[in-house]
Amino acid sequence: MAVNGLMRVGEVAIRVFDLDEARRHYGQRMGLIESHVGDDDKLYYKAADEHDWYSLVLRRSDTPGIDYVGFKTLNDADLDRYATQLESEFGIAVRWAEAGAYPLTGRRLIFTLPTGHEAHIYAHKDQNGNGMPLRNPGTIPDEGYIRGMRIVRLDHVLIGGPNIEANREIFVRVFGWATSELLVDHTNEMPLGIFMSASTKPHDIAFLLQPDAGRFHHVSFLLDSVNDLYHAADLIGKYDIPVDVAPNRHGVTRGATIYFFDPSGNRNEVFTGGYVHYPDTPTLTWDTSQLGRATFSHDNTPRESFLNVLT
Amino acid sequence: MAVNGLMRVGEVAIRVFDLDEARRHYGQRMGLIESHVGDDDKLYYKAADEHDWYSLVLRRSDTPGIDYVGFKTLNDADLDRYATQLESEFGIAVRWAEAGAYPLTGRRLIFTLPTGHEAHIYAHKDQNGNGMPLRNPGTIPDEGYIRGMRIVRLDHVLIGGPNIEANREIFVRVFGWATSELLVDHTNEMPLGIFMSASTKPHDIAFLLQPDAGRFHHVSFLLDSVNDLYHAADLIGKYDIPVDVAPNRHGVTRGATIYFFDPSGNRNEVFTGGYVHYPDTPTLTWDTSQLGRATFSHDNTPRESFLNVLT
Amino acid sequence: MAVNGLMRVGEVAIRVFDLDEARRHYGQRMGLIESHVGDDDKLYYKAADEHDWYSLVLRRSDTPGIDYVGFKTLNDADLDRYATQLESEFGIAVRWAEAGAYPLTGRRLIFTLPTGHEAHIYAHKDQNGNGMPLRNPGTIPDEGYIRGMRIVRLDHVLIGGPNIEANREIFVRVFGWATSELLVDHTNEMPLGIFMSASTKPHDIAFLLQPDAGRFHHVSFLLDSVNDLYHAADLIGKYDIPVDVAPNRHGVTRGATIYFFDPSGNRNEVFTGGYVHYPDTPTLTWDTSQLGRATFSHDNTPRESFLNVLT
Amino acid sequence: MAVNGLMRVGEVAIRVFDLDEARRHYGQRMGLIESHVGDDDKLYYKAADEHDWYSLVLRRSDTPGIDYVGFKTLNDADLDRYATQLESEFGIAVRWAEAGAYPLTGRRLIFTLPTGHEAHIYAHKDQNGNGMPLRNPGTIPDEGYIRGMRIVRLDHVLIGGPNIEANREIFVRVFGWATSELLVDHTNEMPLGIFMSASTKPHDIAFLLQPDAGRFHHVSFLLDSVNDLYHAADLIGKYDIPVDVAPNRHGVTRGATIYFFDPSGNRNEVFTGGYVHYPDTPTLTWDTSQLGRATFSHDNTPRESFLNVLT
Repeated sequence: MAVNGLMRVGEVAIRVFDLDEARRHYGQRMGLIESHVGDDDKLYYKAADEHDWYSLVLRRSDTPGIDYVGFKTLNDADLDRYATQLESEFGIAVRWAEAGAYPLTGRRLIFTLPTGHEAHIYAHKDQNGNGMPLRNPGTIPDEGYIRGMRIVRLDHVLIGGPNIEANREIFVRVFGWATSELLVDHTNEMPLGIFMSASTKPHDIAFLLQPDAGRFHHVSFLLDSVNDLYHAADLIGKYDIPVDVAPNRHGVTRGATIYFFDPSGNRNEVFTGGYVHYPDTPTLTWDTSQLGRATFSHDNTPRESFLNVLT
Repeated sequence: MAVNGLMRVGEVAIRVFDLDEARRHYGQRMGLIESHVGDDDKLYYKAADEHDWYSLVLRRSDTPGIDYVGFKTLNDADLDRYATQLESEFGIAVRWAEAGAYPLTGRRLIFTLPTGHEAHIYAHKDQNGNGMPLRNPGTIPDEGYIRGMRIVRLDHVLIGGPNIEANREIFVRVFGWATSELLVDHTNEMPLGIFMSASTKPHDIAFLLQPDAGRFHHVSFLLDSVNDLYHAADLIGKYDIPVDVAPNRHGVTRGATIYFFDPSGNRNEVFTGGYVHYPDTPTLTWDTSQLGRATFSHDNTPRESFLNVLT
Repeated sequence: MAVNGLMRVGEVAIRVFDLDEARRHYGQRMGLIESHVGDDDKLYYKAADEHDWYSLVLRRSDTPGIDYVGFKTLNDADLDRYATQLESEFGIAVRWAEAGAYPLTGRRLIFTLPTGHEAHIYAHKDQNGNGMPLRNPGTIPDEGYIRGMRIVRLDHVLIGGPNIEANREIFVRVFGWATSELLVDHTNEMPLGIFMSASTKPHDIAFLLQPDAGRFHHVSFLLDSVNDLYHAADLIGKYDIPVDVAPNRHGVTRGATIYFFDPSGNRNEVFTGGYVHYPDTPTLTWDTSQLGRATFSHDNTPRESFLNVLT
Repeated sequence: MAVNGLMRVGEVAIRVFDLDEARRHYGQRMGLIESHVGDDDKLYYKAADEHDWYSLVLRRSDTPGIDYVGFKTLNDADLDRYATQLESEFGIAVRWAEAGAYPLTGRRLIFTLPTGHEAHIYAHKDQNGNGMPLRNPGTIPDEGYIRGMRIVRLDHVLIGGPNIEANREIFVRVFGWATSELLVDHTNEMPLGIFMSASTKPHDIAFLLQPDAGRFHHVSFLLDSVNDLYHAADLIGKYDIPVDVAPNRHGVTRGATIYFFDPSGNRNEVFTGGYVHYPDTPTLTWDTSQLGRATFSHDNTPRESFLNVLT
């Protein structure tokens, strides 16, 4: 059936201290597009090459972190099937938000993952396009549409909590996602990080073993090339955006990366490259004897802050 | 269920005049890896980042062209379902090749598409890896493993024949693939080209309307970057490989491209970029009033040879 | 003395049919910066990373082509030495324009090259910087300063006329420039194209043998990378700018290139790459048996229009 | 006179603990070409796109560091002029090595810079080309000629010692080089780093203020693109080469950079990009209030080891 069911992370909702600061960071500096203005005091952003109306939601709060991860599934009927399977096979309570409860989207199935994160699933979100028409679209939108870091799409999220193997079980059995890579403790093979792909991307979500539930490690945005990654790094330096890890390449996924923080301390990533993954690609395993190489393969040096700072 | 069923074009079998010339072209110059030597007088190649044992098969013949397109499906049980559906819904006769009839692969379902092309579907092919181990793989194989044009993977094929809409019907209803783009006659909206995606790539296969059945337009190989595309073009010029279209960008798929010919006149492409496609991405339509832009968007100039030379 | 004397082509003055059309092409689409407004009905542009106030001058005229090429020399005293040598050794009449006759520049030495082109030499032009301060400049200017094709600098010009070897003689003996490459008729070794470097760039000016004097082949602008070249090509296609040659690589200079035309038919180039040249680098010679490779090395195909259309 | 006189750093002689280890590092891993084998127990390397026979000399020693920096001047007569000026204006004693004393080179003028470094100047070195013919050279050498990190040329050196302003005085007055950038103490404007350009490159040599004379900070090699820089970083990680600073961008020069160490602890750099410099480009000044930005502009974080570890 090719791509079907739960297609991707379609929406990430993050808490920020101050909406004006957040607007300057995500809008003016990163160049995301503020695509919707609601009456709910939240900010709604999309990346340049996404068709859905928004993919990032920012809510004012006194604590940073993640409110929920939203997944888009192909057909509305999938939602009922997921609900049944989550309850019957995993004993997970679900609830529903009716269509329109979240702006411009259909009904949502809402539940809590074993790692303590709220998950939303929806099959419909209105689309306002990618800056180019659907007939004879051309290849590049008008000047000014792509700005800042030249972000293409929301790419993936990394979340932390206990019970990451239970999360995996759900994503494999209910959602049909594949395990692309594992990071295991080399002394006992216990999984510390689980990387899952819904597509031909090397990962769409990852789970990091953490004692506290519901933690947020980072949200990642796709760039087109290493050239654009360097351009993003130039802007990060220009604006004195706090950097966690300057340009490097992950061992896991083989993607090129920069990590930095928003003004509230939430970690962002810009990401490009990585291999083409299929469900028949063998799962790759890294162990902690090679923790440096697994995380930052240019210098094989693990970063303390990267491993332990979550919001 | 994320990626499932018919995952990708996993094998393309092409006819060439001379195996030594073909080996020089595909092996030494393009840098594909001759990965299997059979007793069948065929050449078997794979690209550097593929795990399956081979993806390109070359057979000596007095006429160039394509023997068959092989598709890999995720589970062996899919084959029976496809066979039933092809026969009952489309009246297409199928036959079977037993496991091992083709080297290193499981049983194959074989049938003829409405465009006159032989299609193979298999769920199993032995894997010999991508030059890096499965545990702590690192990010780059040993020097010399990636050679020539630095080809990453077999990417897609474009085939020509009548009844392209019947082909589409099968790929949508039996295989669950999405129509990413259409090229239509602007006078009557008749589809002249149909582009289909099984994944998050902008296309995995395309059908070009042609009066004669079973025609072959090109096989395309994935590169990592526009830099590698220019490097490939430098090699193409160095070796005086006949060029159909020098570096350009397609309107359809937004991919960067070079077209050239193997020594038997079969068209090859190297390809990089293009957008991320999902089944909920709106189908893009190009019409022939913008034929130049749809095909080669840097100069919006259709190429006669590109549109009409097939093998 | 390292770099000294006649440093570079610092100014090119071109004739255009219509200033509004020219402004749309060079300003809005190419992204050059309209840096000076005079009372002379001319347009003055600079590229983003140039310090001098302007490098391109556009004058309304009923015929396209080039008015003059301006060269910047390091010291004002150079001008007197050049004047003396041009008159005494080459019998070339010179004249002077006083400081301020051309906006924001010092006195100019003006004479006609053997190929029939007016040449200006000046040692002073006011500077307004490259969008970044001189103390703690940072690495990237404010968003919006670099626009359109992301042009870095005026790079070089190619002019056509008779007596190209006499031009060379002057540039070697009076100005100390080096001959980086030659294109010769393979039947008799007669130079058809002469490429000269004042720097570590592969060329700063080139002379093309043409029967008519004072002809203009193209003005070239430097880009940072092949990625930016592809981005420029995307814009060229978007705006339906007439393309002479889509992305390719020159044999001569090894630079990556696109040729296109302004609305008046003057040829523009965007250019990136090419080797590092020094005066002790051996002069490379191409002959017309390899004319395709010398001009466009990706397909080794000479373009009729490229060789014969000048303004 | 365009480029003239002292053109570039043409040769760097470095001390290493073990020639076999050095060969593995500089030859097999970095991909420099071992171009000459002498009877002197030294290793001679060149980079792929250099015409001169060698540019890097490695000598076995129990202490790492630099033996001398060799500069190539355009004409042999320059040597006499330099000798006179060094002695008369600067009171610097010079000596001569006769032609052939160093392999494949002409006579050398040898003296000690105020920073305590031995400098060689020569006008002649035999050339063995860049892997491509001088007539109809093409654009890319045969496969295998460019290997490892795909190094194009020796680019520059950074040396440390006292009296860096005296060094500058010599390079300005005797050799005609320009000061492209300065790093000064923000409390008293004292120069701590002086960056000098002999060409259109942003620097050819730099002097770092250090208490001990004759110290070696790094030798830098030019790459073609940020893509190749990432490829080099992938190899550095693969081979566990000790990294000083992973991919970043300098504020000074705006070049993209990686710093790493050879097996003897000598610092190497691969470098790409940076602006085009001319003698009339204003000298840029950084002060120590922006030390992070001046050195590593992606995170504006000075590295202790970078500033203080020299050999």
